[in-house]
Amino acid sequence: MDMMEKVVALCKRRGFIYQGSEIYGGFGGFWDYGPLGVELKNNIKREWWKSMVYERGDVLGVDAAIIMNPVVWEKSGHVSSFTDPLVECKKCHHRFRSDKVSDKCPDCGGEFTEAKKFNLLTEVFIGTVEDEKRKAYLRGEITQGVFVNFKNVTDSTRVKIPFGIAQIGKAFRNEITPGNFTFRSREFEQMELEYFIKPDEKEAEKIFDFWKNARMNWYTSLGMSKNKLQFRKHKDDERAHYARMAEDIEYEAPFGWSEFEGIHHRGDYDLGNHGLKYKDEESGDEYIPWVIETSGGVDRATLFFLVDAFTEEGERTFLKLHPSLAPYKAAVFPLLANKEDLVNKAREVYQTLRSKFFVAWDDRGNIGKRYFSQDEIGTPWCVTIDFQTLEDNTVTIRDRDTAKQERLEVDKLLDYFQNILE
Amino acid sequence: MDMMEKVVALCKRRGFIYQGSEIYGGFGGFWDYGPLGVELKNNIKREWWKSMVYERGDVLGVDAAIIMNPVVWEKSGHVSSFTDPLVECKKCHHRFRSDKVSDKCPDCGGEFTEAKKFNLLTEVFIGTVEDEKRKAYLRGEITQGVFVNFKNVTDSTRVKIPFGIAQIGKAFRNEITPGNFTFRSREFEQMELEYFIKPDEKEAEKIFDFWKNARMNWYTSLGMSKNKLQFRKHKDDERAHYARMAEDIEYEAPFGWSEFEGIHHRGDYDLGNHGLKYKDEESGDEYIPWVIETSGGVDRATLFFLVDAFTEEGERTFLKLHPSLAPYKAAVFPLLANKEDLVNKAREVYQTLRSKFFVAWDDRGNIGKRYFSQDEIGTPWCVTIDFQTLEDNTVTIRDRDTAKQERLEVDKLLDYFQNILE
Repeated sequence: MDMMEKVVALCKRRGFIYQGSEIYGGFGGFWDYGPLGVELKNNIKREWWKSMVYERGDVLGVDAAIIMNPVVWEKSGHVSSFTDPLVECKKCHHRFRSDKVSDKCPDCGGEFTEAKKFNLLTEVFIGTVEDEKRKAYLRGEITQGVFVNFKNVTDSTRVKIPFGIAQIGKAFRNEITPGNFTFRSREFEQMELEYFIKPDEKEAEKIFDFWKNARMNWYTSLGMSKNKLQFRKHKDDERAHYARMAEDIEYEAPFGWSEFEGIHHRGDYDLGNHGLKYKDEESGDEYIPWVIETSGGVDRATLFFLVDAFTEEGERTFLKLHPSLAPYKAAVFPLLANKEDLVNKAREVYQTLRSKFFVAWDDRGNIGKRYFSQDEIGTPWCVTIDFQTLEDNTVTIRDRDTAKQERLEVDKLLDYFQNILE
Repeated sequence: MDMMEKVVALCKRRGFIYQGSEIYGGFGGFWDYGPLGVELKNNIKREWWKSMVYERGDVLGVDAAIIMNPVVWEKSGHVSSFTDPLVECKKCHHRFRSDKVSDKCPDCGGEFTEAKKFNLLTEVFIGTVEDEKRKAYLRGEITQGVFVNFKNVTDSTRVKIPFGIAQIGKAFRNEITPGNFTFRSREFEQMELEYFIKPDEKEAEKIFDFWKNARMNWYTSLGMSKNKLQFRKHKDDERAHYARMAEDIEYEAPFGWSEFEGIHHRGDYDLGNHGLKYKDEESGDEYIPWVIETSGGVDRATLFFLVDAFTEEGERTFLKLHPSLAPYKAAVFPLLANKEDLVNKAREVYQTLRSKFFVAWDDRGNIGKRYFSQDEIGTPWCVTIDFQTLEDNTVTIRDRDTAKQERLEVDKLLDYFQNILE
């Protein structure tokens, strides 16, 4: 098995990610998160919100609907320009993105048709009776929900430019070829910041650089390997229809360098399209603000945090997840499951820790097997209650990454974890 | 203005909830959450997850895709049975849910057609080329994402019956008549627990009662008024197609007693439909588990927490939100905005608090206006830095509900808030 196959297998076996609708043969491009996956993904989203909203003074959140008035997508340019080039094999009729294949069909060697534009917006029908149903779209990007609320946000809060609006939510794209596990899917979650500034090219470049570095640092601060990350500047002919400047953050996945966050200078394209302006109350100036955007894929970040954490060292396989991202912060074991006083003491420790963190309990098999099991899902610490605990109220803490053990007083456990986690 | 109009106006004016796609005339049944609304809603979801998953040992989370293989909805009975009865006025052609209107059209007094069944599932088209596009549905309830993953969850974790699976996510219903602000909308969020038990009617009733009371207590523990809440048992002819027992939790909204959470005994209906079973490893018994479900509406809960918190006392209007739910936990003011030493000290306090909680800053107008402004958005405490602060390092804390003030040392602020919040 190559590394990607191992990660995919681990995700299913331990409950991180399952194929969507698997019992009915799946459904192309849709994935479900299991008990550990939902924790990992929520931890990523919470850390993002913390760094974007709670720890700053100039960013507010919103949460707009997935389905918007279809006029939004006409004005935004998505109905006309949100397309991928599609070719069809003349022999086997399989369809591909023309920018992802060469001259001949990879499935049968046949020739392709001319490329035609294929719109990625997903159509949905809203309304009560067939002949009155109105075609709308599932949002192809969450961004537009921020732009159409620009006036509502400035009217209902006291923000002044420069300021940002942050949002996390689902978006949908009718991808021609979903693939690479959750990397290219038709339903996915985005975490985006739209940062509004006064139109000024120098200022825009400065803010662009600031956010570019801030976003890269966020990933490395949560443990992603620096040597697996790079920036990639878009060439003039590959930028999206709205972008004046665009730079990707890429991760070196087993399937190659892959974009999972983009920083975009959208200029006044979007607010201009929606006819929105900003009035500076002090100077009286009225203008269309420019937007610097950081657009991250939650599922892609989750995938790359998993891939990056996947570690094989000799006999051991473990997920080196940052403690803030790990689904369980600790696991608690009674040394022996058939000794009532050990189990009772362990339950007590478990309940105490659980009041603050998500903590696992395991009393099956031997300690070695329990370590193996917790390593595989990235639990940073295992706490074992043994006979010495009953005498001196100390426990063994075993570290996931070093496999080293130390003894600590039960009463100091909460502080110990809290200090590392904060 | 009646109370509901006041709440709706407050929601827009202060950034809790805006009409979706408002700048394009809206889009019926879709709503956007503003900077304060997203915090309130996220706080509700986080408290729910904490009580359902983190504080229990027998419940795990999942997060399934919104779009599933359409076979799921055939097997679940939704394609055939997820309907509302619809009538049309013969004169003005307006359409209504026949169970919500009387004989004559409320718009023009015309007569209605016979009622016909109208399916609430929202149609969506997936796939790459027109003639190959496949009709699917946006999920009409998040529940099915749990059921189709039942085997995945039991295979990938060590859960044993009885256990629960919790999920929060969006669902969509093509409602005939969306209305009452966010109460009946076409896009909404659910927070649901499916609790799996061994088939046994007595046990089922016990578990049903347990969850019924647990859910009611959760709402009151977060400050919802007991006298505005009631249970309502479904009559035999109004239960959904899957339910053996069903009881609602209702809130006395300005528009009448309204359901915002349901507790359902779904029996083996769903797992049976999907052909899923459970094998008890110890006894070797194989059976289709029964399900007790608690299904709460996140948007409805958010609305009723807001309505319930809305308080007018003499001159004062304030949102009596539970501190855990309030968007901002505190606001920090320098007494005078033009005294540099006051502002610097206030900034210092603000940064310290902000490292732990979401905290507002206000240095505009006079203290009275700032209190008014924070009261209206439910901020539990206002902290004012004045000249005495510079001498003895104490601040004034003013309580939202009592409007009383006390002095406290700056160094004790974090602990003071943390103690109340935990």
